[in-house]
Amino acid sequence: AIVAVLEELASAPAAPDLRGLRVLVSAGPTLEDLDPVRYLGNRSSGRMGFAIAAAAAQAGATVTLVAGPVSLPTPPGVAQRVDVRSARQMHAAMLDAARAADIVIAAAAVADYRPAQVSTHKLKKHGGAMILELAENPDILAALAALQPKPFLVGFAAETEQLEAHARAKLERKGADMIAANRVDAGLGIETADNAISVFWHGGQHELARADKTTLARELLALIATRRAAVRAAAP
Amino acid sequence: AIVAVLEELASAPAAPDLRGLRVLVSAGPTLEDLDPVRYLGNRSSGRMGFAIAAAAAQAGATVTLVAGPVSLPTPPGVAQRVDVRSARQMHAAMLDAARAADIVIAAAAVADYRPAQVSTHKLKKHGGAMILELAENPDILAALAALQPKPFLVGFAAETEQLEAHARAKLERKGADMIAANRVDAGLGIETADNAISVFWHGGQHELARADKTTLARELLALIATRRAAVRAAAP
Repeated sequence: AIVAVLEELASAPAAPDLRGLRVLVSAGPTLEDLDPVRYLGNRSSGRMGFAIAAAAAQAGATVTLVAGPVSLPTPPGVAQRVDVRSARQMHAAMLDAARAADIVIAAAAVADYRPAQVSTHKLKKHGGAMILELAENPDILAALAALQPKPFLVGFAAETEQLEAHARAKLERKGADMIAANRVDAGLGIETADNAISVFWHGGQHELARADKTTLARELLALIATRRAAVRAAAP
Repeated sequence: AIVAVLEELASAPAAPDLRGLRVLVSAGPTLEDLDPVRYLGNRSSGRMGFAIAAAAAQAGATVTLVAGPVSLPTPPGVAQRVDVRSARQMHAAMLDAARAADIVIAAAAVADYRPAQVSTHKLKKHGGAMILELAENPDILAALAALQPKPFLVGFAAETEQLEAHARAKLERKGADMIAANRVDAGLGIETADNAISVFWHGGQHELARADKTTLARELLALIATRRAAVRAAAP
């Protein structure tokens, strides 16, 4: 199995060929409003997801991009862009678009929690401490994994520690085909131009060395195309 | 007194003259980290504050701009820019710079609260609800008002309701010389190009009608120059 994986990687093309495939990509943060002014946010520039959408379009795929609040132009060749703000909006947009997708790459940094109550008026300050109750957001990756037929599903994990353990746990728990994990420290990962990604799947892994996000996106798509072909070849 | 105010307004120049004055402006949101990925934020593009800094520099002032996390270029002519992220960083930068300022315009949307605990690791999700404890941030406007000698101090109030009541309460409570209040609904105020501002001071008020932020900034500075002159003329 290790030899087979190595052979697959050696044959992974530098420029992936995704012609005829429909690729759905999520990008950016989600922001969870507490009132008309305050929100709970995730740090994410959206650049990794936008680079993946751009590279997938360049590789010939029909690309749908679901974007959280970012100030980035739609990459050339992207067929459709859906802008959302909250995790629940992203959940709805992703499930809607995923039914027509062959490959789903969930690169957005989705908020796990949202304020349990949202105020339509600006909350007034009342000295001292304050307690904010949070409610859990829907699990988009798990919901995508439950689709039938299931698209080839790639999740992301941004971790400050125990990268492989957290990524492998996420792979199992969510039912994804692949987890692209990156560290969010040392000037890498979020709100930066460069990134480095460790990719995990059942029975294998591959390191994408530190590079600009355009290069990484192309390498990741080549790996996805190879892994998807291997999974389909092994299917009964 | 009303006649005097009207005369002042009638004589307010369209292009304010701030030559020889040192103006300190804050702009943008503050973001309060919960862990390396999550934060509590305020919606603010920073454009109003940046427009005020630009207009003040154009009017001949020596301008220092303290900016929260925004993706805006420093306006031409601004002498110094200090970038900060949190309310506590903004508090320190503003108090430091205010000692050398004749006029302070606090246009930043500063977070009233921050997470009571900040985690250096990414907090892991653990199903169900969650409680977030918040601690109160320092009151920058009140701290600026306590400076001796006190600069001419202009605060901002973004309100969804009871604009005048909230603005006048803030004027009294904080010890500011002027409060510029704007509604944050109906496509106005935050993350938009246009704005409309109601300006309140002890014994007077003035409406700056909906306009682009560059125009409003110039009008607001003209009003500030006029009011500052009136206050100084009335001083013992």
